[in-house]
Amino acid sequence: MAKNAIVGQSGGPTSVINASLAGVFESAKRRGAGKVYGMMHGVAGLLERRWTVLDDDLKTAMDIELLKRTPSSYLGSCRYKLPDWHTPEGEAVYVKLFEILKELDIGYFFYIGGNDSMDTIGKLADYGQHVGSDIRFMGVPKTIDNDLMVTDHTPGYGSAAKYIGVVMKEIIRDATVYGTKYVTIVEIMGRNAGWLTAAAALAKAEDCEGVDMICLPEIPFNVDHFVEKVERMQAKKPSIVIAVSEGVKLEDGRYVCELADDVHAVDAFGHKALTGTARFLANTVARRLDTKTRCIELSTLQRCAGHLTSRTDITEAYQVGGAAVKAAFEGHTGEMVALKRISNAPYQCTTELHPISEVANLEKKVPLEWINADHTGMTPEFLSYALPLIQAELTPIYVEGLPHHIYLPE
Amino acid sequence: MAKNAIVGQSGGPTSVINASLAGVFESAKRRGAGKVYGMMHGVAGLLERRWTVLDDDLKTAMDIELLKRTPSSYLGSCRYKLPDWHTPEGEAVYVKLFEILKELDIGYFFYIGGNDSMDTIGKLADYGQHVGSDIRFMGVPKTIDNDLMVTDHTPGYGSAAKYIGVVMKEIIRDATVYGTKYVTIVEIMGRNAGWLTAAAALAKAEDCEGVDMICLPEIPFNVDHFVEKVERMQAKKPSIVIAVSEGVKLEDGRYVCELADDVHAVDAFGHKALTGTARFLANTVARRLDTKTRCIELSTLQRCAGHLTSRTDITEAYQVGGAAVKAAFEGHTGEMVALKRISNAPYQCTTELHPISEVANLEKKVPLEWINADHTGMTPEFLSYALPLIQAELTPIYVEGLPHHIYLPE
Repeated sequence: MAKNAIVGQSGGPTSVINASLAGVFESAKRRGAGKVYGMMHGVAGLLERRWTVLDDDLKTAMDIELLKRTPSSYLGSCRYKLPDWHTPEGEAVYVKLFEILKELDIGYFFYIGGNDSMDTIGKLADYGQHVGSDIRFMGVPKTIDNDLMVTDHTPGYGSAAKYIGVVMKEIIRDATVYGTKYVTIVEIMGRNAGWLTAAAALAKAEDCEGVDMICLPEIPFNVDHFVEKVERMQAKKPSIVIAVSEGVKLEDGRYVCELADDVHAVDAFGHKALTGTARFLANTVARRLDTKTRCIELSTLQRCAGHLTSRTDITEAYQVGGAAVKAAFEGHTGEMVALKRISNAPYQCTTELHPISEVANLEKKVPLEWINADHTGMTPEFLSYALPLIQAELTPIYVEGLPHHIYLPE
Repeated sequence: MAKNAIVGQSGGPTSVINASLAGVFESAKRRGAGKVYGMMHGVAGLLERRWTVLDDDLKTAMDIELLKRTPSSYLGSCRYKLPDWHTPEGEAVYVKLFEILKELDIGYFFYIGGNDSMDTIGKLADYGQHVGSDIRFMGVPKTIDNDLMVTDHTPGYGSAAKYIGVVMKEIIRDATVYGTKYVTIVEIMGRNAGWLTAAAALAKAEDCEGVDMICLPEIPFNVDHFVEKVERMQAKKPSIVIAVSEGVKLEDGRYVCELADDVHAVDAFGHKALTGTARFLANTVARRLDTKTRCIELSTLQRCAGHLTSRTDITEAYQVGGAAVKAAFEGHTGEMVALKRISNAPYQCTTELHPISEVANLEKKVPLEWINADHTGMTPEFLSYALPLIQAELTPIYVEGLPHHIYLPE
């Protein structure tokens, strides 16, 4: 009797993470897995015995098509860090998890996520080896942030980059309409790595002059220099559009958004959210220069825009799911599937496997040599890297005027 | 020799205002106009002798297809109010304008805009009559705000409403992903009329539970009642998504965003911008209730999302341009084209003419009977009204991964 498989989604959602789920599900069925379970809200939900049977949810080819087009995590997500299993309290968690996996007769365990989620796969594979389990644990990469090591890029980045390129172009069209002095500052996600903000460079084309400045967290930020640059640019053209990472930091390590003296959104524990960078800079420019300003935060829109995805990204998200299943059925465990680029033009990309230890809890930043000399934009090398990832579209299936999704009510 | 035509765009841009420009241009050429001039930045630009010859810009059928798909105003825009021509200083402006129109041998003058722009058409037609000019002045309606009198709806609204419906659905999918307590407050444009915010109701469908609360400026806002409602809702489900108009006001007439004690974006003249409503409410809820919160401002994205338009809206935007040309060639002046709905199911709509005096400087609000009894959502009557306006899509023409635009460098 064939073993069953289980799959979970973890960390921040993307608009293509469900394409990886489709890839895992269909590949596992093709390779003869018994049932395919889905953890509800990742490992945290599994510990509370919350799961669904995907064989019952995904019955038709149309269900799979909708799943590929549904943003955010179909199975729900969690931000849960497994404890160290070398302590008694820690090990109790693993004992409970492995009991559940045994009860469900799981032979293959897949986790779709970023560097924190890969930490989970690494710990489970280690503990599995420790107790002599034959369950295979495989990681499937996912994050809009593109900050995972060893993989050329991460599924999720291409669609977020395409979204950013498209809306920056639209914002530029909108901002120039009055021909008056205007500074528009757009805040883009990315706490430590500037990959998403760098994607604003994609807006430049024969039909668009592009953004005027790009500020990444990789480069220490100086407020005075920033205002001076804006002033110099505005002497030449009235409407200036700037992309700034939410995570830009001063030389002394403080986040720019911490300079704002206004009230920040706080969570229930009083934690300050990392937001308000663009607002602070827009207010500062308006105070110091003779210009109108506007700040725009792309917020969660950039990670859930299922209506505007990259077909290249969707295809690769599906492929890494399938490659993880293939590897698990061939006996691999404790590894992550990575994307390996063969060439830029024509774009070719394949998959390979890497030990989790090369990925978990690490962060890949934008190479400094891909940032131009005066720190206002990206070099052609970055564009050669990013352009293939945003090519082609997957048209939504519109029902009554809106893209249709597949949805699992709680 | 046939007279020439001139067309301008005025007020805030939309994602379909250029479809009206295409309708005016093609219809004027079909009816035998000489040249078709475009005012750069509306009447304000015309007074500075800034125009383009559209016959030279729009040479191919592909140019027209791109124009229909290009958001924001191809010709640029202005916010310029013509003076009263009954004063000597005022009349000087009209004398100058009519001299330019004579020099360009204009017989037909079209202005695409909202209620302020219709004021311009009204004044020009009046003055034209006063001086015995045979130029015909026709208004073409446009505004995402949907607040123009006499027309069933305004071109621009359908696409903005579709954008809002789509992103609210995506935000809802994103906000439920962790299964934890979360209040997401989305700020939508609309200073006095809640049409755009009401469109958030379109997100509800068999695959989406919809937004939990909709707050329009038509209903006086009470912060305490708002927090109590959120608390009651969150007792039943953890993730609450709320659409709030930027223009919600307290019983005493103050805007809710004025309650925030933080720094607002100010323009060069120190004017406070009408923004920060969602941020203030998210901070208030986070302080008073045990929940995380997030605010999202749709900002200009809702009016320039050319990648996500309603085909119904694009078609009607083109039609009102054509109808204005037909009317002008038949001798009408000082009127605006309006949309007249024939039926909801099947949706049928035609055009009719109205005197400018019924439109200029007036504002149409959401009927109170279309807001539900507890002021948290819209009635089925609103949905029957709005749903036909968001149907069908006009696929962008993607070049190198981004929607291609047609663009007139200054």
